[in-house]
Amino acid sequence: MDITFFLNRDLDIPLYQQLYQLFKNEMHEGRIQKGMKLPSKRLLATQLSISQTTVERAYEQLAAEGYIVSKPRSGWFADYNDSDYIHVKRPDTTSINPKTKENEHSIDFHYGNVDSDSFPFSAWRKSMVSSLDQYGQQLYRPGNILGELELRTLIAEHLYQSRGVHSHPEQIILGAGNPVLIQILCQVFGQDMSIGFEDPGSLRSRRIFEINHMKILPISVDDEGICMQEIRELRPSLVYVTPSHQFPLGTIMTINRRMQLLTWAAETQSFIIEDDYDGEYRYSGQPIPSLQGLDQHNRVIYMGTFSKSLLPSLRISYMILPSSLLEKGREITSLYKQTVSSHNQLTLAEFIKNGEWLKHINRMRKLYQKKRTILLETLQREFARQVKIRGGKSGLHILLDVYSAFTEEELIEKALEHGVVIYPASHFYKKNQPPTTTVLIGFAGVSEDNIQEGIKKLKAAWEI
Amino acid sequence: MDITFFLNRDLDIPLYQQLYQLFKNEMHEGRIQKGMKLPSKRLLATQLSISQTTVERAYEQLAAEGYIVSKPRSGWFADYNDSDYIHVKRPDTTSINPKTKENEHSIDFHYGNVDSDSFPFSAWRKSMVSSLDQYGQQLYRPGNILGELELRTLIAEHLYQSRGVHSHPEQIILGAGNPVLIQILCQVFGQDMSIGFEDPGSLRSRRIFEINHMKILPISVDDEGICMQEIRELRPSLVYVTPSHQFPLGTIMTINRRMQLLTWAAETQSFIIEDDYDGEYRYSGQPIPSLQGLDQHNRVIYMGTFSKSLLPSLRISYMILPSSLLEKGREITSLYKQTVSSHNQLTLAEFIKNGEWLKHINRMRKLYQKKRTILLETLQREFARQVKIRGGKSGLHILLDVYSAFTEEELIEKALEHGVVIYPASHFYKKNQPPTTTVLIGFAGVSEDNIQEGIKKLKAAWEI
Repeated sequence: MDITFFLNRDLDIPLYQQLYQLFKNEMHEGRIQKGMKLPSKRLLATQLSISQTTVERAYEQLAAEGYIVSKPRSGWFADYNDSDYIHVKRPDTTSINPKTKENEHSIDFHYGNVDSDSFPFSAWRKSMVSSLDQYGQQLYRPGNILGELELRTLIAEHLYQSRGVHSHPEQIILGAGNPVLIQILCQVFGQDMSIGFEDPGSLRSRRIFEINHMKILPISVDDEGICMQEIRELRPSLVYVTPSHQFPLGTIMTINRRMQLLTWAAETQSFIIEDDYDGEYRYSGQPIPSLQGLDQHNRVIYMGTFSKSLLPSLRISYMILPSSLLEKGREITSLYKQTVSSHNQLTLAEFIKNGEWLKHINRMRKLYQKKRTILLETLQREFARQVKIRGGKSGLHILLDVYSAFTEEELIEKALEHGVVIYPASHFYKKNQPPTTTVLIGFAGVSEDNIQEGIKKLKAAWEI
Repeated sequence: MDITFFLNRDLDIPLYQQLYQLFKNEMHEGRIQKGMKLPSKRLLATQLSISQTTVERAYEQLAAEGYIVSKPRSGWFADYNDSDYIHVKRPDTTSINPKTKENEHSIDFHYGNVDSDSFPFSAWRKSMVSSLDQYGQQLYRPGNILGELELRTLIAEHLYQSRGVHSHPEQIILGAGNPVLIQILCQVFGQDMSIGFEDPGSLRSRRIFEINHMKILPISVDDEGICMQEIRELRPSLVYVTPSHQFPLGTIMTINRRMQLLTWAAETQSFIIEDDYDGEYRYSGQPIPSLQGLDQHNRVIYMGTFSKSLLPSLRISYMILPSSLLEKGREITSLYKQTVSSHNQLTLAEFIKNGEWLKHINRMRKLYQKKRTILLETLQREFARQVKIRGGKSGLHILLDVYSAFTEEELIEKALEHGVVIYPASHFYKKNQPPTTTVLIGFAGVSEDNIQEGIKKLKAAWEI
């Protein structure tokens, strides 16, 4: 038979996988019938200009699943009778991870990325192995529901020293990412609560509150932080803020606004969720203690993650509950069990104990500081007064107001045409009028050279 | 000052941790005031009969958090002024993990445990390291939302061969434990759906459905499986079953009942959740294909976990969605992001590819088969006709009906007094009348000797 498969070398799906899937498809859709002879490995390899080993792996996988059989001295034959099976329309794998393709070629200023050349692999591997040898047996126990006490203690110590957070390990709950913890929080508070949510604010967090039946009350953000005026009018029972680096605006909440927010919470017996998603990275100005550290009345839930300070794919986040929420928090958490594998927790604990984590953060802080300077300088040089930079004092992204005839959408499209991926600011607005020509630029995951090249390309793209 | 701390050596918590916490407490509750001199390491070590190193570690941690300071040539002094800080009532750590103490000493027949001496650590370590070296860079990417394609493909292959499950990797969604996946399912189906739930059935799963606002309709279970009669009367839009080893009864759903259930689902356009939590372990009788494998109409959601076949603390589960639920399933999943760390997924993939996993399962199957035989024989020998054993054909636990004057609660208490932990069957009943003298005995996590000793102790405890 004549095979005319298209193998996409841009996908991060191995070629033999793609080949295997394509054959499977052909059989499911009846285009290759039971008994048909398949092309020889040599022939197919030539036709698709891939190695014979690739074909071999695909055939072996198909054989293992009983799709094909090999007959001695005559080759491979389809052995799959479609009517034996249910029909499943095969979904397009690329749609699962749309950015895959772009990432390969273009300069991606995604605000969620981290620098991918500086992770101390060997140190991490060491912690991984030594924790396995040290705690091997412990991995059989269900593990502590809230997270291994060892790690929670280290987190409490670190937050006390770095963010002025005052907590006992027993208040700390670990989870496989902030979304998991937010969902637990929603069930701690129960349904139909109203939550004052920064507008603009994190789209993902907002949607998780929504899908867990919290009523979202959008609250504006000014230069000092979230607007107290609106909070007092709307009377939410809960407020979600990102004080150390407002997402996406990048504002740092002033000490005055922090005190006002805390006073309001204490007076109204409301709770504040402080999401300190990238608090490790501050480049200038006085350090301002976390809301949790300033709080005198147990009204703050503090959330943090290792995604920015270590690896996003590690999926380790934590939250610190005030004592009044501990019991309920534990009850809900124990229902879901601890979602972070014990070994990953103990590896991280080892990594922190050996001082590797702090070393890494300090290295990263310098690196991001440098990248940020390069970004700001290049923007100045290329665009001068045609852009305004916002939120560069801390964190891993900035907002760029572009003074041109193009709309946000056009700015992003034209950038993409020139191989640069930037992100819209408007997406993060709920009630308030979104800006029309503002884009989000994350710099952590882009090399210093690519930052400069990327900005130059933007200039060309925007013709200014 | 005179220190009269009680250090609990039965707890999981290292002594220096306990000491550190106790000191912290004393200061938080103002019993140790700022400026007070702390006892010397030598003195305290003698007072509490612990090593000086233990004291040293505790003091160092307290110093690191600024609770105490050391003054040259005069020792350690409290440096903590309580009024500077919020008050947090310190919760009792032991309450977090109640079973910790018992586990240390007694024979625990918990149905969730696995054998803790047979895990192939070195092979796992090898997969861990080699996957890190192989995929190092990949760990920086956000990772595939549904789970790494590599692992999902291997799972699809394994389930096809071992359970007759017919799936594409694209239908598979990974999650950090079944609870996480059930919660995603609940949000896929939306609120106020009614779910037919086995009665008796898994307490945890039921509570997760409840807390996610599903209406539970308890359905009785007979010798063939869940009762079709009640399903037809109650008309749930969804049914949750454990066909390969009904939890907790241990019944294996007959092929007839499976076909009836599938026909009902097809006719009423309802969905079936098939939780195959320990399907790997079957000891006798013909293998019966999974519901998902028998289904011709895309009505089955198949769930599985690596908790029983590998390690509970690994937190890797998966579900297979019918194509009609794929889009919504992906949407919800991508909101929470993938909850299993990429590296753990790739380690497992490596482990499976090298054949280590199958080797492990086969080894375990033999081992559990042996343990089960010993359990059944010992029960026969010790109790003869005074007990009835149920659900021993597959899985890792059995039900024991005890013919004696004692109630379930008394049976369990008396066992505990003799150092044996067994579990009540009644907890798993919702609407139906629970048995009054039936207990749950898991054997996977207990050594062969302890199984025999444990049963002997039960005989003594129950005086029969």
